[in-house]
Amino acid sequence: MESISKGLENVNIKWTRLTTIDGQKGILWYMGYRIEDIINAKASAEEIQYLFIYGQLPTKQQLDDFKKKIQEGYNIPDYSVKSITNLPRSADSVALQMNAMASFAATEKFTWNKQTDRDYAARIIGQMASVTSVAIRHVLGKQPKLLEPSDSLAKSFLKAVFDREPSEKEVEAMNDALILYLDHEVPASTTAGLVVVSALADIYSGIVGALAALKGPLHGGAAEAAAMQFLEIGDPSKVESWFAENIKSGKKRLMGFGHRVYKTYDPRAKIFKKLAQELNPQGQAKTLYEIAEKLETLGINEFGPKGIYPNTDFYSGIVYMSLGFPLQNNIYTALFALSRVTGWMAHFLEYVEEQHRLIRPRAVYVGPSERPFLPIDKR
Amino acid sequence: MESISKGLENVNIKWTRLTTIDGQKGILWYMGYRIEDIINAKASAEEIQYLFIYGQLPTKQQLDDFKKKIQEGYNIPDYSVKSITNLPRSADSVALQMNAMASFAATEKFTWNKQTDRDYAARIIGQMASVTSVAIRHVLGKQPKLLEPSDSLAKSFLKAVFDREPSEKEVEAMNDALILYLDHEVPASTTAGLVVVSALADIYSGIVGALAALKGPLHGGAAEAAAMQFLEIGDPSKVESWFAENIKSGKKRLMGFGHRVYKTYDPRAKIFKKLAQELNPQGQAKTLYEIAEKLETLGINEFGPKGIYPNTDFYSGIVYMSLGFPLQNNIYTALFALSRVTGWMAHFLEYVEEQHRLIRPRAVYVGPSERPFLPIDKR
Repeated sequence: MESISKGLENVNIKWTRLTTIDGQKGILWYMGYRIEDIINAKASAEEIQYLFIYGQLPTKQQLDDFKKKIQEGYNIPDYSVKSITNLPRSADSVALQMNAMASFAATEKFTWNKQTDRDYAARIIGQMASVTSVAIRHVLGKQPKLLEPSDSLAKSFLKAVFDREPSEKEVEAMNDALILYLDHEVPASTTAGLVVVSALADIYSGIVGALAALKGPLHGGAAEAAAMQFLEIGDPSKVESWFAENIKSGKKRLMGFGHRVYKTYDPRAKIFKKLAQELNPQGQAKTLYEIAEKLETLGINEFGPKGIYPNTDFYSGIVYMSLGFPLQNNIYTALFALSRVTGWMAHFLEYVEEQHRLIRPRAVYVGPSERPFLPIDKR
Repeated sequence: MESISKGLENVNIKWTRLTTIDGQKGILWYMGYRIEDIINAKASAEEIQYLFIYGQLPTKQQLDDFKKKIQEGYNIPDYSVKSITNLPRSADSVALQMNAMASFAATEKFTWNKQTDRDYAARIIGQMASVTSVAIRHVLGKQPKLLEPSDSLAKSFLKAVFDREPSEKEVEAMNDALILYLDHEVPASTTAGLVVVSALADIYSGIVGALAALKGPLHGGAAEAAAMQFLEIGDPSKVESWFAENIKSGKKRLMGFGHRVYKTYDPRAKIFKKLAQELNPQGQAKTLYEIAEKLETLGINEFGPKGIYPNTDFYSGIVYMSLGFPLQNNIYTALFALSRVTGWMAHFLEYVEEQHRLIRPRAVYVGPSERPFLPIDKR
């Protein structure tokens, strides 16, 4: 049989100026800037979104203009809201985002064009934020609420979801989560979206394709799955016995550990851990944090020698929970998507504008040789 | 720079027992059966759907059971209907299918399981048929109507869309169109869906991802685009001058010609042409057929020596038009999708059940080297 590139591992699907990863050393750069430096400099999510969409950091004026374009997106049409609220409240939040983004794919007259692509991208960041607010509020039994302009996307988003003024610390954590999940080269979601836009489908359809992949438990679903695993353990005193019974025995996979690219500690995981600490989690989030810390040590002892370490999803759920997002309906994956939509679009722009080619791989045929077709009454 | 597999051309993403193509000789086999033999034997679409889902042709009893499962899918929930009717009637039909299938992704508790995957697949064929009926009727200004069981999917579908008993000839043509577009190895749509399900997202999300890619004008959109081109020419007497002015000059691409795999006449195009003739098109469809025939000759003379021939999309639009589907709102691509959904699912089953691996390619980094991050007030 001809050889198959299983999982497309080590196949280069495109070039990029956006993100690069040193999986051995555990370093992540956004266009040459180390992720730790970006977070330490207290960059706003909008600055980094601008960096990805325009290819350089904005001046103050450019940033203000960009924010206005994002804010234009907040006011999504009624039918997009209804494409979410029309569905049962038991729905998966990411699938709700898919519905709303598909409503734009159905109605927006988008065509790829260097002159307008970036205005679309900015507006879509805003649209996606309102979509995510409506989706989360819907599964929580609340009426839809769109974002309203404020000094930051993170603040407007938390206000819309929770009907209250967030603290400065909460805004900072949300802002940093938006940055940390913003891009990560070409994982399954980005790849699915690239295949979609390679057929020159509109940018919204590309996002829907990416969301569909992100929904999978092996990808974005991992943030929710990691937190669910802490919940299953239930109490810090039970971590060791749970680990022996479920992980050492090979019965279960340790969620939030291991990565196709990182063979050491994911730098984003460290930052998410610090964010979780700084939010000083209470109640359920506090318990889960304590469980996570114990589990982390056991996991690194067991799997570290094999290059399996905590990934970005290990602590992100606890950050989200500390911010007030409940662990249900795949909400954490929807928050991941709100952040990642910028990375998706930046990769789409690079691909369609500069290196476009329809993505059409092949399959190796291993089926029957030619044979006569017998009609059903002669079979 | 490390090399890039542009468009993943010649990269094998999976193995398959389903479909194989000899692009040089223009032969297409479905599991070893030549497409011409299947059509000549007057196979029902359901038989071939069964073949793809179960891996062998059905007995009479198996076919009856399978049809019942498909029919169970006809009765889609109200909220799935509303996810279509809630949107403006000017919407793209494929995006409407995306919305409805995403409504299932939001609500169905699907997990991959060999015991239940095939029941889901059968039901989804039925759901997709009702979704497509509602979508087409919506853009045509009609009230939603679901399919009702009859002796064939093709008949139930035409009845639902057009509120009338279709002729035998019409049912046959619709049936054959369902077979002709059923599968074609791993084009962009199937690939996008594979990436989605490789993350173990649910089967509906896989279909949404595939629909998103199919919507693109370089893929499924070509069926509609080919017919649009005939419409633009407007009259058989104008074919030669239009061809000289637009195609010979290089101003436009000849739509419905050329294929990444076929370097000769696409066997499906020949069958679609015959179906179009047999339907004895009238009015607009007759004019477009005459235009298409003339354009075909000019196109083959011009591009044949380069291995560029009519593809399956060249005549399919005229078949759809002769069946009464208007050329608007991307309806022809939605009909393509109704057929292809079976091929998508069959590839998903092969991939997830037998050769699963998360699809995660790499990108070659060509961006800036590490640099310090300056806060905005120091830039």
